[in-house]
Amino acid sequence: MTYSSSPEPSFEPGASLADVGEFGLISAITSRFEQGEQVLIGPGDDAAVLRVRTGHVVVSTDLMVEGRHFRRDWASASDVGHRAAAQNISDINAMGGRATSLTIGLAAPADLEAQWALDFAQGFADECALVGASVVGGDLTRADQVVVAVTVMGACTVAPVVRSGAAPGDVLALAGRQGWAAGGLAVLGRGFRSPRVLVEAYRRPQPPYDAGPAAADAGATAMIDVSDGLLSEAGHLATASGVAVDVRTDALEVPEPLHAVAAALGGVDPVAFMLSGGDDHALLATFPAGTALPEGWSVIGEVREGEGVTVDGAPWTGETGWTHF
Amino acid sequence: MTYSSSPEPSFEPGASLADVGEFGLISAITSRFEQGEQVLIGPGDDAAVLRVRTGHVVVSTDLMVEGRHFRRDWASASDVGHRAAAQNISDINAMGGRATSLTIGLAAPADLEAQWALDFAQGFADECALVGASVVGGDLTRADQVVVAVTVMGACTVAPVVRSGAAPGDVLALAGRQGWAAGGLAVLGRGFRSPRVLVEAYRRPQPPYDAGPAAADAGATAMIDVSDGLLSEAGHLATASGVAVDVRTDALEVPEPLHAVAAALGGVDPVAFMLSGGDDHALLATFPAGTALPEGWSVIGEVREGEGVTVDGAPWTGETGWTHF
Repeated sequence: MTYSSSPEPSFEPGASLADVGEFGLISAITSRFEQGEQVLIGPGDDAAVLRVRTGHVVVSTDLMVEGRHFRRDWASASDVGHRAAAQNISDINAMGGRATSLTIGLAAPADLEAQWALDFAQGFADECALVGASVVGGDLTRADQVVVAVTVMGACTVAPVVRSGAAPGDVLALAGRQGWAAGGLAVLGRGFRSPRVLVEAYRRPQPPYDAGPAAADAGATAMIDVSDGLLSEAGHLATASGVAVDVRTDALEVPEPLHAVAAALGGVDPVAFMLSGGDDHALLATFPAGTALPEGWSVIGEVREGEGVTVDGAPWTGETGWTHF
Repeated sequence: MTYSSSPEPSFEPGASLADVGEFGLISAITSRFEQGEQVLIGPGDDAAVLRVRTGHVVVSTDLMVEGRHFRRDWASASDVGHRAAAQNISDINAMGGRATSLTIGLAAPADLEAQWALDFAQGFADECALVGASVVGGDLTRADQVVVAVTVMGACTVAPVVRSGAAPGDVLALAGRQGWAAGGLAVLGRGFRSPRVLVEAYRRPQPPYDAGPAAADAGATAMIDVSDGLLSEAGHLATASGVAVDVRTDALEVPEPLHAVAAALGGVDPVAFMLSGGDDHALLATFPAGTALPEGWSVIGEVREGEGVTVDGAPWTGETGWTHF
């Protein structure tokens, strides 16, 4: 099923999902979703219908689970909505494409405040609007904890950039913030709320949405979204391409607030946040040596013969990223 | 992210998701997913890429939550997989289309048996194979209960059939089993396991996959998937079309096993299972009067001026279907 459309109702303060009911919430949510010209049939029927001019569709799906991917006391409903959309849009970006349409499944306890769901939907829609994508359908049901399931569709204007095309001699390059969200998460985990810029980066990432298509246009040989950690994603890219990857820490410019956090946490190496942190949804790509990199991309290492990931030529013994089990 | 591909490992008997790990399970699952010619890039990258020849894509998404939509003691992992795929494919069917590609998100407790996830994936893939659709990507993460999030994509060969096109004078028609799954659920809920044919219908629905496109070809004016209940879905169709719908119980042929269950439950009217039952994923459609209905479709009522749903011309006072909150 997909959302039904009708005028937006107003809810009593404190009303729960059980109070407003499935269809009350769905109509309230749906009214927040603007439909772009690519949407032939939007929310409200058994399925949505999207115009596809390119002969292909790029598709990815992601789950976010309360207590594991977000905490409602650490991020607002709007933040969670922004992040759910951003991390999915970023997967299309990482193929060199642009997102056009998203679906959203929300499973939640019956006593969840209906306003939380509305604010979540608004944040989600606002993030989609940044790239001109529409929310075209969804599903809503009851569960013991909040689970958000998003599927994103999009298109490329040149050939999609996969993980497996890196070749020895290529440069390794990064676009977007990296380590900021991990710094913010470390701060929140210790009960602090500052540096605020890092906490905000964790709550609401700012993926480099233009960097993916720009990299594809510039001839990127491989690309991946840094969702779980720079080194672990570099490892996926290396494995898929059958190459080794070396990351140079002197090429990683540590942002000032990460220095502050690392010092506050008792002398942690701030570079560790950048190497193992995820959730910023930076992009990692390889380009033939000598490529003029697009705006926003910086060389941070190189591709070599062999396998695995090294840091400054040596094995890395710290964390590499997030594991899901 | 999407699934990574690698040779299928074997798991120790009783191994849990935590034992085999995210990537071990993903590679085992992915090896079961055959990719059709419509898949340009399958599982294993940030996103999949699908060929679209029709200029449009039809998309729908659904959630299934353990304890709410299925119980692991009432249905096998394979059954749950079959049902998760079937109910999504049916949403494309209800637009008059055919499914081509699906993504699947699985959130599960760390102590879930890895074999359960594998059997679930196999059942899911087997159901998709019935209609020639491929599983092109997914996500796997930990949660307190099993949550299955599926998105299905497909295409129509004629204009999609929406819910809102029914007009007074149209006939109301049904395709597929209706009430069987509700009968099976009633049996299971009372601790019984027979009539087996109804229990099996609940565990593994058999949606009329060809009936949707056939209805579209025959000029159906409106169509909807009966997932939550015949009368409640008829109500959605009536509301969307701005018409009234009357269902004639003498046109509903009660299958023999439903008579048996109704009698065993103390004289329940077996027609009630057909009017309020969901989960069979029958299709409900309207056609201009005099249309030669395609194979598998039967007239069960008519469309009138007005609003709402009546049964034999009178209001229905029983259950109309499933509510999610």
